[in-house]
Amino acid sequence: MRAHLLTIGDELLIGQTTNTNAAWLGEQLTTRGIRVARSVTVGDDASTIRRELERAYADATLVVTTGGLGPTHDDLTKEVVADYFDRPLATDDALLAQIRSAYDRRERDMAEKVKDLAEVPDGFDLLDNPVGTAPGLWYQEETGGRERLLAVLPGVPTEMKRIAEASLFPRLEQRSDRRTVTHRTLQTTGIGESDLQAEIGDVSDLLDDEVHLAYLPSTSGVRLRLTSYSDRSDRAAEQLDRLEEVLRERAGQYIFGTGTDTLEAVLGDMLRSRGLTVATAESATGGYIGHRLTNVPGSSDYYLGGVVAYANSVKVGRLGVSEATLEADGAVSEAVARQMARGVREATGASIGISTTGIAGPGGGTDEKPVGTVWIGYADDETEHAVRQKFLQDRMMNKDLFSTAALDVIRRQLERKEASAPAP
Amino acid sequence: MRAHLLTIGDELLIGQTTNTNAAWLGEQLTTRGIRVARSVTVGDDASTIRRELERAYADATLVVTTGGLGPTHDDLTKEVVADYFDRPLATDDALLAQIRSAYDRRERDMAEKVKDLAEVPDGFDLLDNPVGTAPGLWYQEETGGRERLLAVLPGVPTEMKRIAEASLFPRLEQRSDRRTVTHRTLQTTGIGESDLQAEIGDVSDLLDDEVHLAYLPSTSGVRLRLTSYSDRSDRAAEQLDRLEEVLRERAGQYIFGTGTDTLEAVLGDMLRSRGLTVATAESATGGYIGHRLTNVPGSSDYYLGGVVAYANSVKVGRLGVSEATLEADGAVSEAVARQMARGVREATGASIGISTTGIAGPGGGTDEKPVGTVWIGYADDETEHAVRQKFLQDRMMNKDLFSTAALDVIRRQLERKEASAPAP
Repeated sequence: MRAHLLTIGDELLIGQTTNTNAAWLGEQLTTRGIRVARSVTVGDDASTIRRELERAYADATLVVTTGGLGPTHDDLTKEVVADYFDRPLATDDALLAQIRSAYDRRERDMAEKVKDLAEVPDGFDLLDNPVGTAPGLWYQEETGGRERLLAVLPGVPTEMKRIAEASLFPRLEQRSDRRTVTHRTLQTTGIGESDLQAEIGDVSDLLDDEVHLAYLPSTSGVRLRLTSYSDRSDRAAEQLDRLEEVLRERAGQYIFGTGTDTLEAVLGDMLRSRGLTVATAESATGGYIGHRLTNVPGSSDYYLGGVVAYANSVKVGRLGVSEATLEADGAVSEAVARQMARGVREATGASIGISTTGIAGPGGGTDEKPVGTVWIGYADDETEHAVRQKFLQDRMMNKDLFSTAALDVIRRQLERKEASAPAP
Repeated sequence: MRAHLLTIGDELLIGQTTNTNAAWLGEQLTTRGIRVARSVTVGDDASTIRRELERAYADATLVVTTGGLGPTHDDLTKEVVADYFDRPLATDDALLAQIRSAYDRRERDMAEKVKDLAEVPDGFDLLDNPVGTAPGLWYQEETGGRERLLAVLPGVPTEMKRIAEASLFPRLEQRSDRRTVTHRTLQTTGIGESDLQAEIGDVSDLLDDEVHLAYLPSTSGVRLRLTSYSDRSDRAAEQLDRLEEVLRERAGQYIFGTGTDTLEAVLGDMLRSRGLTVATAESATGGYIGHRLTNVPGSSDYYLGGVVAYANSVKVGRLGVSEATLEADGAVSEAVARQMARGVREATGASIGISTTGIAGPGGGTDEKPVGTVWIGYADDETEHAVRQKFLQDRMMNKDLFSTAALDVIRRQLERKEASAPAP
């Protein structure tokens, strides 16, 4: 099955918004064995959208649109697709009631124009929207032996993704005209792409037309994507097992998870299964570690909270950091990182205290402590230590990298403990 | 002058790379008065690239391509454009010498295939590449009274940008057929797209072919984009002033900034100029407010830090929340929100304490306090209050919305103070 993407919105053309929707849909469809052959962005103009639908269906079976689904006058997608497939719009009463009740629950009045959201082209299915008011739309028809499939999604990325995951992909996965493709992802952190490649070395004897390996770098780490195109599932599993074994042998210490695991979720499971709790003492990361830990549902099982010690006065007053140490070593130092980790552990009664103190930039760097320097402190009932890391990025990326490094310090410490524990 | 973008590369279609080139070129061309009417991404396939060139020139004067300019076998752009314009490729000796010398300086051997980089279609100009080996290309021709302009740029963003800035934009800026376009953006928060539209009501008497208004929603708020296409800058300013005045009259309380302002940066400026400091007591947001505040360079001027009080024991132990109140009202309550805000203010000595306690989901909701409920507490030296907000989103979006609402509580409080202050 070939797909074309049609992303709609003036804001994409004038560069006010980067088209992350196309990238995400491209990746998601590809991993499901659907080939994305072309991706087109046009503005909020009915005749242009229509012309691109025609062009897309000249080549593709499936067209996925994003954008232009809201209640305002420049939202034209629904009208255009209804017209293109000659399917008149009519109010869907159940949908209208659902939208009205969403407004009621938020205790807000519903504007007249919002009712347009409940209009659906005849013969189209709704794709449930678990997080917003406007659902997506699905349509399929076969005329003259040619099948045309259409998915209409909103432009707001979070809504688009949730609708696609909940309602669109399950439909597509039922189809037999996909290329068989088996993916496996290993998640690494704490090592850059080139270094990881050097650690892993040559694996070309395991790769061929049927078996691929891709390095996918991001700020939180490098993902290794293993792919088999074999249409025999046992053969694919065997190929990927063999490749995974070699990768784990050579770079296992950097691999923290598989699939779409996040470091914070993997760490959360480790803490929960060991009955441990953690508290955070954040300076350089400003609360970001707490945010990441609490992004995981159920994190209250193991995360108690902590202190954002951005000002030195808070480090002293709330965490018991010594003023003399701050004076002698500076805030970005091993001693302060350790005192912060120890202090938050004592203040909260957590099993583990973790801390960050560093220079995210752009200001504040010195020759000795350049922008991108961070000390990460760790304390539990048996051990206390701090490690220094250096990154070379801008403020936002540094905060991201600092927080990832801190979460990984806990993960590695727990793994070390596990490894050195006497057999039961 | 109308432009189409043609971004080339399999990695863009399968989502391995997000298409930041299209966004950047869109913004740069738009601000130079060149209308980007369409943006197409295709893979590394000669016939597809050629077909898209044909489609583009059916509508546009200028086509800008990125990607497919390197030395490997899947780099096809140069061959395709040479063929499309019927301009044979020939080696440019000066360029070959330049490429050879770059290899010598890096003490590397030049592979045979690299020589292909020095081939240039007859009649094409080079666009100097200050940072890499492959230059961009420029071509223009007029046939049958129709002008066609072509810029061919590499796909690596840093190289693409440097070539465009150094060699492409100066050429385009000399042309007289650019449309003058003036944008202005108003940033709102605390109100959804439909509600904002209802507040603003009908402004069609201020809009016409020359003046446009767009609503651009995201989780942090709705941006209002005002555009004038008048070629007289005084007239454009007047048009946008008039429209902005009406928008501010009708929805001013929701407008926190202009351009690319963020709420945290605007709030930071307000705090700094008033000599105030703030501390955070976060339960539901888990540190995210601190993270957002510290994303702003220089935030140590006004942000002291605070407490992430995820567990009730931390609310009691670190913020002085009363156990009796927790027992009687529950953690997600007005009284606890107020005690948290008051507690963190006292613990840190900040001018303002702000707190969140709520249910981000997916678990923990009840009929009385459903998922998406948050209490936001505010305390300063004169006043203390808490507001309840209800959202209907998933965990990540709720945390985002809670934190935006909390930052906006401070902003509104400071504006109210300003408004009620006696004239100096």
